[in-house]
Amino acid sequence: MQKNIETFLGCDSEFSDSKIVIFGAPFDSTTSYRPGTRFASRYMRAESYGLETYSPYQDMDLEDMQIFDSGDLELCFGDTEMALSDIEARTQEILDADKIPLMIGGEHLVTLGAVRAVFKKYPDLHVVHFDAHADLRDEYLGAHLSHASVMHRVWDMVGDGKIYQFGIRSGERGEFQWGKDHVITQKFNFDGLCDVVEKLKGKPVYFTIDLDVLDPSIFPGTGTPEAGGVTFTDLLEAIFKVSKLNIVGMDMNELAPTLDTSGVSTAVALKIMRELMIAVYKERN
Amino acid sequence: MQKNIETFLGCDSEFSDSKIVIFGAPFDSTTSYRPGTRFASRYMRAESYGLETYSPYQDMDLEDMQIFDSGDLELCFGDTEMALSDIEARTQEILDADKIPLMIGGEHLVTLGAVRAVFKKYPDLHVVHFDAHADLRDEYLGAHLSHASVMHRVWDMVGDGKIYQFGIRSGERGEFQWGKDHVITQKFNFDGLCDVVEKLKGKPVYFTIDLDVLDPSIFPGTGTPEAGGVTFTDLLEAIFKVSKLNIVGMDMNELAPTLDTSGVSTAVALKIMRELMIAVYKERN
Amino acid sequence: MQKNIETFLGCDSEFSDSKIVIFGAPFDSTTSYRPGTRFASRYMRAESYGLETYSPYQDMDLEDMQIFDSGDLELCFGDTEMALSDIEARTQEILDADKIPLMIGGEHLVTLGAVRAVFKKYPDLHVVHFDAHADLRDEYLGAHLSHASVMHRVWDMVGDGKIYQFGIRSGERGEFQWGKDHVITQKFNFDGLCDVVEKLKGKPVYFTIDLDVLDPSIFPGTGTPEAGGVTFTDLLEAIFKVSKLNIVGMDMNELAPTLDTSGVSTAVALKIMRELMIAVYKERN
Amino acid sequence: MQKNIETFLGCDSEFSDSKIVIFGAPFDSTTSYRPGTRFASRYMRAESYGLETYSPYQDMDLEDMQIFDSGDLELCFGDTEMALSDIEARTQEILDADKIPLMIGGEHLVTLGAVRAVFKKYPDLHVVHFDAHADLRDEYLGAHLSHASVMHRVWDMVGDGKIYQFGIRSGERGEFQWGKDHVITQKFNFDGLCDVVEKLKGKPVYFTIDLDVLDPSIFPGTGTPEAGGVTFTDLLEAIFKVSKLNIVGMDMNELAPTLDTSGVSTAVALKIMRELMIAVYKERN
Amino acid sequence: MQKNIETFLGCDSEFSDSKIVIFGAPFDSTTSYRPGTRFASRYMRAESYGLETYSPYQDMDLEDMQIFDSGDLELCFGDTEMALSDIEARTQEILDADKIPLMIGGEHLVTLGAVRAVFKKYPDLHVVHFDAHADLRDEYLGAHLSHASVMHRVWDMVGDGKIYQFGIRSGERGEFQWGKDHVITQKFNFDGLCDVVEKLKGKPVYFTIDLDVLDPSIFPGTGTPEAGGVTFTDLLEAIFKVSKLNIVGMDMNELAPTLDTSGVSTAVALKIMRELMIAVYKERN
Amino acid sequence: MQKNIETFLGCDSEFSDSKIVIFGAPFDSTTSYRPGTRFASRYMRAESYGLETYSPYQDMDLEDMQIFDSGDLELCFGDTEMALSDIEARTQEILDADKIPLMIGGEHLVTLGAVRAVFKKYPDLHVVHFDAHADLRDEYLGAHLSHASVMHRVWDMVGDGKIYQFGIRSGERGEFQWGKDHVITQKFNFDGLCDVVEKLKGKPVYFTIDLDVLDPSIFPGTGTPEAGGVTFTDLLEAIFKVSKLNIVGMDMNELAPTLDTSGVSTAVALKIMRELMIAVYKERN
Repeated sequence: MQKNIETFLGCDSEFSDSKIVIFGAPFDSTTSYRPGTRFASRYMRAESYGLETYSPYQDMDLEDMQIFDSGDLELCFGDTEMALSDIEARTQEILDADKIPLMIGGEHLVTLGAVRAVFKKYPDLHVVHFDAHADLRDEYLGAHLSHASVMHRVWDMVGDGKIYQFGIRSGERGEFQWGKDHVITQKFNFDGLCDVVEKLKGKPVYFTIDLDVLDPSIFPGTGTPEAGGVTFTDLLEAIFKVSKLNIVGMDMNELAPTLDTSGVSTAVALKIMRELMIAVYKERN
Repeated sequence: MQKNIETFLGCDSEFSDSKIVIFGAPFDSTTSYRPGTRFASRYMRAESYGLETYSPYQDMDLEDMQIFDSGDLELCFGDTEMALSDIEARTQEILDADKIPLMIGGEHLVTLGAVRAVFKKYPDLHVVHFDAHADLRDEYLGAHLSHASVMHRVWDMVGDGKIYQFGIRSGERGEFQWGKDHVITQKFNFDGLCDVVEKLKGKPVYFTIDLDVLDPSIFPGTGTPEAGGVTFTDLLEAIFKVSKLNIVGMDMNELAPTLDTSGVSTAVALKIMRELMIAVYKERN
Repeated sequence: MQKNIETFLGCDSEFSDSKIVIFGAPFDSTTSYRPGTRFASRYMRAESYGLETYSPYQDMDLEDMQIFDSGDLELCFGDTEMALSDIEARTQEILDADKIPLMIGGEHLVTLGAVRAVFKKYPDLHVVHFDAHADLRDEYLGAHLSHASVMHRVWDMVGDGKIYQFGIRSGERGEFQWGKDHVITQKFNFDGLCDVVEKLKGKPVYFTIDLDVLDPSIFPGTGTPEAGGVTFTDLLEAIFKVSKLNIVGMDMNELAPTLDTSGVSTAVALKIMRELMIAVYKERN
Repeated sequence: MQKNIETFLGCDSEFSDSKIVIFGAPFDSTTSYRPGTRFASRYMRAESYGLETYSPYQDMDLEDMQIFDSGDLELCFGDTEMALSDIEARTQEILDADKIPLMIGGEHLVTLGAVRAVFKKYPDLHVVHFDAHADLRDEYLGAHLSHASVMHRVWDMVGDGKIYQFGIRSGERGEFQWGKDHVITQKFNFDGLCDVVEKLKGKPVYFTIDLDVLDPSIFPGTGTPEAGGVTFTDLLEAIFKVSKLNIVGMDMNELAPTLDTSGVSTAVALKIMRELMIAVYKERN
Repeated sequence: MQKNIETFLGCDSEFSDSKIVIFGAPFDSTTSYRPGTRFASRYMRAESYGLETYSPYQDMDLEDMQIFDSGDLELCFGDTEMALSDIEARTQEILDADKIPLMIGGEHLVTLGAVRAVFKKYPDLHVVHFDAHADLRDEYLGAHLSHASVMHRVWDMVGDGKIYQFGIRSGERGEFQWGKDHVITQKFNFDGLCDVVEKLKGKPVYFTIDLDVLDPSIFPGTGTPEAGGVTFTDLLEAIFKVSKLNIVGMDMNELAPTLDTSGVSTAVALKIMRELMIAVYKERN
Repeated sequence: MQKNIETFLGCDSEFSDSKIVIFGAPFDSTTSYRPGTRFASRYMRAESYGLETYSPYQDMDLEDMQIFDSGDLELCFGDTEMALSDIEARTQEILDADKIPLMIGGEHLVTLGAVRAVFKKYPDLHVVHFDAHADLRDEYLGAHLSHASVMHRVWDMVGDGKIYQFGIRSGERGEFQWGKDHVITQKFNFDGLCDVVEKLKGKPVYFTIDLDVLDPSIFPGTGTPEAGGVTFTDLLEAIFKVSKLNIVGMDMNELAPTLDTSGVSTAVALKIMRELMIAVYKERN
């Protein structure tokens, strides 16, 4: 008899054969409002068996693709730097094998751990960032390592003009002001994304999707829901565009599954994940 | 003192006077993912007193119509064939009295029981099918009688070219492939419905609405929610179109009320039910 | 050490300095269906710290404005007239100081208490009313003071042609019929609002927002959700238009926060409140 | 086909044959803390099909007894006196037919309506009162008709020394002080109940059970849960004792079913109701 | 990198080394009231990381024991016989390797599948049965294979005087009457268990624990909660007694984790499972 | 008009007059399993108006006592040491004014911050510790500052034989082994508490109550519920005993209010808090 192996639906290839490697980063220690994103990868893996492997949008099937699920990291709660180091290490291990890491957060700060590893390999890294929140504070409640300052920390590495934000509709006044000089921000929607994709062709891109970019009507299960977001179809189409770029790392974060007891938010995250993996995968074949 | 009679709001006519006869089919034994549609008719009946009988869309009132609520069947859980027989018997009893049955599921498999009776009376039966899922598998987990294969079982009776599906956005690759040769499938939306209505004028039509055709933002209370669905207004308008056909039987199914603790899904199902009954009723006067 | 002062986010000015004065009216005794709006002001105040004070829509910040939060009234449950008197008294106290009252309901009947005070000061009062329900019954379950008859009671004071309703999509047939002769009703949406704003320029206006005018996809947390409502963006834009009028009193009501366990409805109400306060405030500077 | 009749499990006799007549009093307008007892009778009736008619405690079966369920009153929310009058009228109708009324609340204030009718018929009425709360205030938030003052209002009728309270563990200091001179109060438990039963033998007794006398571990679904209550078995045994008295009216109240999403509280209330009905019924044969 | 292996906490031995083999039987198709036991094994496995491997009751540690978790069966919903066959096959596979199967249900009917295999190997099988419900009906809603008739079906195999029931407090009158002649039933509690253990010493025993034998105060997460049950400590002590017998197969069932959103029921089931495994294991060393 | 002041019920004295000073420590960053204790003080303050100020257990009233509520600290999530420093500072400020601090956690780690300040003032400090968990690990997931190691950290300061634990029923084997040499541990219950109280008479005592010492039947709203706990009455009596000691600081922690949607856990915590405050207060008069 075999031990009990659990993977995301249709992501059961061997590591060596795979092009995309999934891992979960269950961490939400700096979440200041409503925690719970630590449960995202666990719930998503368990609920993924309610999804089909076939995409009627792209007419392709996960079963034809080589994707590996390496499970969840066991991260330290309460010591943020230690958690980020573990994330960085796992990301680097995947990059070293020339595979694309797909991290499932966790709060958005986990992106910093992954970007550290990716940036080391690709110093000319650009970042495409979908989010409701600017995440550009320099510090929050006294901490420099915070979900609210993650893109500022990413900027510390990649520098001016490398971060492209879309869908932003919440932040302090100061974040928007600081952002004007350092990042490219499209408020509320994906206007201008085609131009950005054109411009970034060929460059190494890290793609981070804070799922709260979605309108809370379709994605209520997140710590800080912000009305006025993009639709599911908007997001799918935007992902299809970005997937044509040279994506060298990616993540999805901020699903807090227990906040939406209907299970819809988890199902939405899973469908986004399926479409993202298929879209990125097929560009590489 | 009178015994406690409970009916759907405004559906308190006598059986003999009525044109539409409602019954509940609380059955979800083959539901493989999240059960709970067994509670739909009970919750809908209880919550219906929060609705108005008057439709501002159609400027008509349920109080002016003759509709009879015959309550819920007591179906066997665990013996699928026995449950389907009971549904078939109740449907036939209604058809024998020259009334239109309106069944409230339950999982979508209950449609098979009703269609068996309707098909016996109308061998040239056509089926209009609104759903997020194709439901075209030949078997599921070893069973031929399954919510996931119900339209395949209906096809066993009615044959090629008689089933018109709209809104489909989930299924195995094989279902879509098989479907191309046997049923007419419109993915994602109601495009082409006007033409179908034109074509089916005068023919006997069974109308089955799997409520998960709606986007889960407005209808989260269902076992397998699929993002990217139609809006409430889309569905209303599509129903108004189909109601102009010669509908000889109809059902609404897949509400799982306890999965949406806000009560919105049940309220949505009730409003759809009111508008459906009014629309079908007025075509017959 | 200081006592524990709690206000809505960014509404911590002194009474004497303020232009807008907030108070909560936690009352839902006449709610016939699902109670719970009594918790709205309490939940909103507590959750407001998850919001930003800065509006990216209007590029303004609550921190630059003088708004005072006077807390919640302690209202009698079970004696409707006593509760309305207490609301009237608080409203009058605010009006006497030449400030604009912003009441957070509670069920919609609380509007009657506030309008009584406002009407006394402004006998030529007009009312702009956003709602899913007409609220025009003369009585409900034997009571003249009911959430379902509140706009009829307001009409008792202000008279014909003074009440402008938008978004209405539910009511008895009789309400719509009576309404034709006495109030101006726009069904389903905000069509015609620009003309109304043009027409009411300069007149004293009471602005009452029943939040269930929103579609329940984005605002499920209300006692009687009605599908087919306006979007969050529709509502924001409509508020921006109305805010250009001479608003002398306003309220938001019918949030029932515990009915939406995801917290989205409360977050939506808070964002509407922020935008409403900023929009009204800036017109007065 | 028959209309849909719904009764409490096993309570489907004709009115004329019955000894006990059930009715629901869905009213909670004066509830100051958390409302929801209005849903009790509806949830209990619907959930009663999960119960057995047979009592292994008393080795008797509801199916052998004649009990009639007259459904729920439609009470006015917001006008307390009107609601109490309707309750009084229904109670009197049952008493006039020489049957025992069993009212399912609602908040505890509904007891006042029933006792008014019972007291008219039995001026020497005694009251046995199980509760966590003394309910002896003279007024609450300005109202004399309140759930918190119901036993004071009952005392207004029956006078000193007629009310026997058990299980009381919450109240204002003033209630306990006033109570010393006017009612008999056993704090925390049922000590002394045997003596009381001995003393009241033959006298007409109204028996009111506020279910929050139970410990919230087994009965969390109530507006104001008070730890330190009696066990389910304690309550059963106490009911068996009291049922030997000449009970001329009885009620169970303060279940708020939606506050306990596990359904346990409703199931507990139903089992208490079954045992109460069987115990009282068999004493009359 | 390794694939993602998930086992119950501390049950990560190899199959060949193990003495106890766990498997999940996620099936609840015949559940007539509230479904959801299909989720038990999945939730328990996921939540088991909140438990300690060390038992302060027995001063032993799971980490010192050889237990294998073979994961969950994928059972057919809607075809009861097919599901039972799959359960029987897995049980037989474990027995053939001379290990003790520990099945996690599912509804109680799954016990039938396991007992079929165990009875084949041990024709003199005795059954110790902890439950709130007698489960002795011959049929239920027309079906012979039902959660409500499972012990009757077991009796079909093992015959008179082989089934010892404890804690029973719910059933039809007919079940108790039939039971008197065929099984040994202790109502409400574990009185007499010591004698039974003495009597069954050395005989092959199947031990089935329907967790609803527990009082719903500590175990609300089950489809049909029955007040008046045993305490957690009562159950632990009873398990310690039974574990001294020659247990050749065992199961725990009827946890419906989503019905108890606090997570307590799942935590309770896990602790019972830990103590059961340790107690049974140490008797075999 | 006055600003909105919110305090725990009956704790509205001035700082200078008070003997006990309350503050909230909303922090749960190191919680590894299910977070949510950050919401405890906020929910408790809001829900406290459902409680009475009068204790029928002690026949005393909070209204006769001088207690000050200084509100909640705003603590940094993600930087544990910074949070502990803020807690220490507030505690010291209260001690400097010769008042008794009563901290409402938060996860149990917050106790460390308070004990640091108390220990500085009282180097001969003893600690009475009620808990389900030993909390004696040296590190957890790599962190020395963790809810699971808090009593080990306290031991770092106070040393051997100063910590008295009661009710402990969960921990790693190593914790119990280490504990034997360094702390005094009573497993499962309060046996021996009288002797401890006798022994500690006159010594400065810090009293920390992890509310999960209670059985989860009455207190399900906590991150890691452990069946087999003490009853509410057990805990009350134990508190009355300990309150006779020279308590120089105290806390209650580990309520996670959103995990128990019935609200019972919050109500239980509040009643414990009321009884604790009254008991400690009256010993000082």
